[in-house]
Amino acid sequence: MPQDLTILDEDGLDVRRVAAIVDAVDAGDVARIATLMEPLHAADIADLLEQIGGADRRALLALWSVGIDGEVLSEIDDAIREEVIEALPASVVRDAMRELDSDDIVDILEDLDGPKQGVILDGLDVADRVAVEAALAFTEGSAGRLMQREVVVAPSHWTVGEAIDYLRAAESLPDQFYHVILVDPRIKPVGYVTLGRILSSARGVRLDAIVEDSFRVIDAVEPEADVAYQFNQYHLISAPVVDAAGRLVGVITIDDAMNVLDEEHEEDMLRLAGVGDDSSLSDGPFETARLRLPWLVVNLFTASLSALVITAFEGTILTLVALAALMPIVASTGGIAGTQSLAVAVRALATRSLTSANARRVVLRELGAGLLNGIGLAVILGVAGFVVFGDWKLGAVLGMAMIVNQVVAALGGVLVPLTMSRVGLDPALASGTFVTTLTDVMGFFAFLGLATLVLI
Amino acid sequence: MPQDLTILDEDGLDVRRVAAIVDAVDAGDVARIATLMEPLHAADIADLLEQIGGADRRALLALWSVGIDGEVLSEIDDAIREEVIEALPASVVRDAMRELDSDDIVDILEDLDGPKQGVILDGLDVADRVAVEAALAFTEGSAGRLMQREVVVAPSHWTVGEAIDYLRAAESLPDQFYHVILVDPRIKPVGYVTLGRILSSARGVRLDAIVEDSFRVIDAVEPEADVAYQFNQYHLISAPVVDAAGRLVGVITIDDAMNVLDEEHEEDMLRLAGVGDDSSLSDGPFETARLRLPWLVVNLFTASLSALVITAFEGTILTLVALAALMPIVASTGGIAGTQSLAVAVRALATRSLTSANARRVVLRELGAGLLNGIGLAVILGVAGFVVFGDWKLGAVLGMAMIVNQVVAALGGVLVPLTMSRVGLDPALASGTFVTTLTDVMGFFAFLGLATLVLI
Repeated sequence: MPQDLTILDEDGLDVRRVAAIVDAVDAGDVARIATLMEPLHAADIADLLEQIGGADRRALLALWSVGIDGEVLSEIDDAIREEVIEALPASVVRDAMRELDSDDIVDILEDLDGPKQGVILDGLDVADRVAVEAALAFTEGSAGRLMQREVVVAPSHWTVGEAIDYLRAAESLPDQFYHVILVDPRIKPVGYVTLGRILSSARGVRLDAIVEDSFRVIDAVEPEADVAYQFNQYHLISAPVVDAAGRLVGVITIDDAMNVLDEEHEEDMLRLAGVGDDSSLSDGPFETARLRLPWLVVNLFTASLSALVITAFEGTILTLVALAALMPIVASTGGIAGTQSLAVAVRALATRSLTSANARRVVLRELGAGLLNGIGLAVILGVAGFVVFGDWKLGAVLGMAMIVNQVVAALGGVLVPLTMSRVGLDPALASGTFVTTLTDVMGFFAFLGLATLVLI
Repeated sequence: MPQDLTILDEDGLDVRRVAAIVDAVDAGDVARIATLMEPLHAADIADLLEQIGGADRRALLALWSVGIDGEVLSEIDDAIREEVIEALPASVVRDAMRELDSDDIVDILEDLDGPKQGVILDGLDVADRVAVEAALAFTEGSAGRLMQREVVVAPSHWTVGEAIDYLRAAESLPDQFYHVILVDPRIKPVGYVTLGRILSSARGVRLDAIVEDSFRVIDAVEPEADVAYQFNQYHLISAPVVDAAGRLVGVITIDDAMNVLDEEHEEDMLRLAGVGDDSSLSDGPFETARLRLPWLVVNLFTASLSALVITAFEGTILTLVALAALMPIVASTGGIAGTQSLAVAVRALATRSLTSANARRVVLRELGAGLLNGIGLAVILGVAGFVVFGDWKLGAVLGMAMIVNQVVAALGGVLVPLTMSRVGLDPALASGTFVTTLTDVMGFFAFLGLATLVLI
C-alpha cells in the first residue's frame, strides 16, 4: 500500500508528486503511475515531462502513453516535443492530433521536420488536413499561423432565435468561442456579437442590432507580436482574421494571444541578457553553451576596446597604481546605470509607450536623471576617495569621472535601443553588450584621462 | 480647413495624430481636438495622455474633458492618474466611475489617497459602493482586489431554458461574462457552463449535465501572481472567487489576469536591472533618479570589493602593467555569462518551470555550459594573448582565469536566484548586482592571483 498517497490529495503538480512518479517509473509500477498521473491537468503533465530527466521521461512514456492526449502535446515545450512524439506509439499520436483545433495542430507541426509532418498530416481527417495545410502556407509568426480555422459565423440579418437554432443544430463547434461573427454575402466580417448579448436578448432581436461597438479585424499576414499587442491594448477576447481580399479565414482567441505575449516577454528578457531565443530549460549543457557563446565572443572583442583604452594610460597607472584598483568602480556603476536605463527603454518600446511622440522628453529625462545620480554618487565617492587616500584631487577625479559616466550610461541606455528600433532591429537584441561596453570604455577613459590631467 | 485630416483615416494612435492634437491644444481649437480624439479607443486616449507633456495634458483636459470616460481612467498609468482626476470636473469623474465594473473602480481607487477615495466613493451608487468597499477590505495584490463582484450564477438544477429566460429578464449583467457559474443553496460554486455550451444545447438540458470538465476555484486571499499563473497555465477565461467559507464572492476574468501577467513581467525585467517597481515613463528626472539611486549606491559598495581585491595585487600590476589592461576582459565576459545564466533562471522561476524537482539538473547543466564556454573563450583569449604579447604564460593565465570565471558566473547566475527564491525573496530582486559583483571580484582575483603565481 503506498503510504504517501494521502499527501497527494491536491490535484496540482508538486515536488512530492514528481518524486513519487519518478519512483513509480523506476519500479515499473504502471498502476501507481496511472493513479498519480490521472488527476493531473494536461498542462501539468507537460510540465512534469519537462522537469524529469530524459531517461525517466522515456521510461514513463513507454509505461504510460495512454494519458498523453492532444492537449499534453500542445502544452509541451518545443525543445522536447519531438522526442516525446517519437517515443509514443503512432496510434496515440494520431488520436491526440485529431482532438485538437487547427491552430494547436499547426503549432505542433511547425517545429517538426518534413517527413514527420507528413506522417501526422496523413493521420488527420481531410477537413483538418486542409485547414492545417492552409495555415502552414502562412509565414511562421504571422496571424495566419496563430488563428484557428474553426469559426462560428452568421449572416448579419439573422435574429437571435435563428442563431440559437443554428448553434443547437451544429454538428461540431470549436472547443471555445466567445463571439458569433457576422459576415456579409461575400464572407467579409462586418461585426460580432458576444455570446452574453445573444443569451440575454429576445429571440426576435436582429444580430446586427446587438453588435459590439468596437470591432477589430486582423490581417492574416500581421506579425503575431502586433496581434498580441492589440489583444492586450484593446482587451479583446477573440478577433476575426481576414485574407488580402478581406474575407474571413479564421479567428484568434485570447489564450493564443496571451501565449504570444508571454513568449515576447521571454524573448525580450533573454535577448537583453544575450541569450539565444531558442534556449529552453530542457536543453543539455552543449546546447546551452552553444546558444550563449556568440555574445560572449562578441563581448571578448568589445572588452578588448576597454583594454586598449587602459593600455593608453599605462604610464599613468605606473605612476599611481591605486588608479587600477579604483577604475572598475566608475566603470561598473556606469554599467548598472546603463542597464537600468536600457531595461526601462526596452520595456517601454515593447509596450509601445515610448514612441517618437515622447522620445525627446524621455531622452531629456534620462539625461537629467543621469546627471542627478552622477552628482549624488560623485559626492559619496569623492568624499570616500578623499578620506581613504587623503588626496582631495583624487576624490575630485573620481567624482568627475562618475558624473561623466552616469550621464553617458543614462543616454546610452535609451539611445541605443531607440536607434535600433528606428532602423528596424529588435531593441532588446545586443543592446546589453553595447551599453556595458560603452560604459566600460567611457568609465576607464574618463577616469584615467582626468587622472592624467589632474594628478600626474 | 485642416489639411492633414486626410492622413488620419486610421483610427489608432500614431505620431502624426499626437502632433496634430498637441497643435490643436496649443491653438485652443476645441472642435479640432474633438475631431481628432473621438475616433480613438479609450486605451489610445490613455496612451496619448501619457505620451504628451504635463502642460499639454492639463491644457487638453481643460479644453476637452467630455471624452474622458471610465474606461480611459481605468487604462491610464497610475503615475499620472491622480493628476488627470484632479484636472477633471467632479461631475465628469463621477459619471466616469459609475460606468465601470467594481474591479476597475477598485483598481483606480487603491492608488488614490484617503480623502480623494472618499469623494469618489460618495459619488457611486449604493450597490457599487458596497461592492467596492468590500473589495478594498482585501489586501492589495490579492485575488479579492482583482475580482469583479458582478457575477452570473444559476442553481445547478436549472435547465438551459431556465438560464436563458433568466438572462433575458436580467436588469443588468456584467459588461463581459463567459460562464454561468453553478452554485449550491449555500452559494458555493459547484461548476460552470460556458455560454457556447448553453447556446448550443436544447432548452430542456440540465446545466449540471453540460459543465466544463476542469473547474478551478480561486481563493480571495490568493496573491494575484498565483491567479495569473493559473490563468496562463490552465487557459482559463474566467474563474469564480470564493471566501474562506467557500462561498462565491466574485469572478476574475482573463483580461485582468493578462494585465497582472504583464505587470509581473515588467517587474521582473526592471527588478533584474535594478530599477524600482514603481517607475513609470511619465516620471520626471528627479523621481527617475530617486528610484534608481539605491542600487547604484549598493553597487558603489560592492564595486569597492573589486577595488580591494585589485589593491592586494598592486605589486603584481606594477611589475607587469599590461595586467591592468587585461583584467577587465576576464571580469566583463564573466559578467555577461552571469547575466545570461541569471536571466534564464529568473524567467524559469517566474514561470515555475524551475522547481526543486529539476533544480539539481539545471545547476549541473549550467556548470557544464560554463565549463564548455570557459574552455572555448580560454582558447580564443589565450591564443590572442600569446600572439599580442608573445608570452605563452600570459596566454595561459588569461585562459585559466577565463575558465574559472565562466564557471563561477554560470553557477552564480543560477544559485543566487534559486537561493533567494528558497528563502522567500523575489529572485529578480538584486540578483543582477550580486551576480556581477561576484563575477567582477572572481574575475580580478583569478586573473591577478594566477598572474602572481605564474608570471611574477
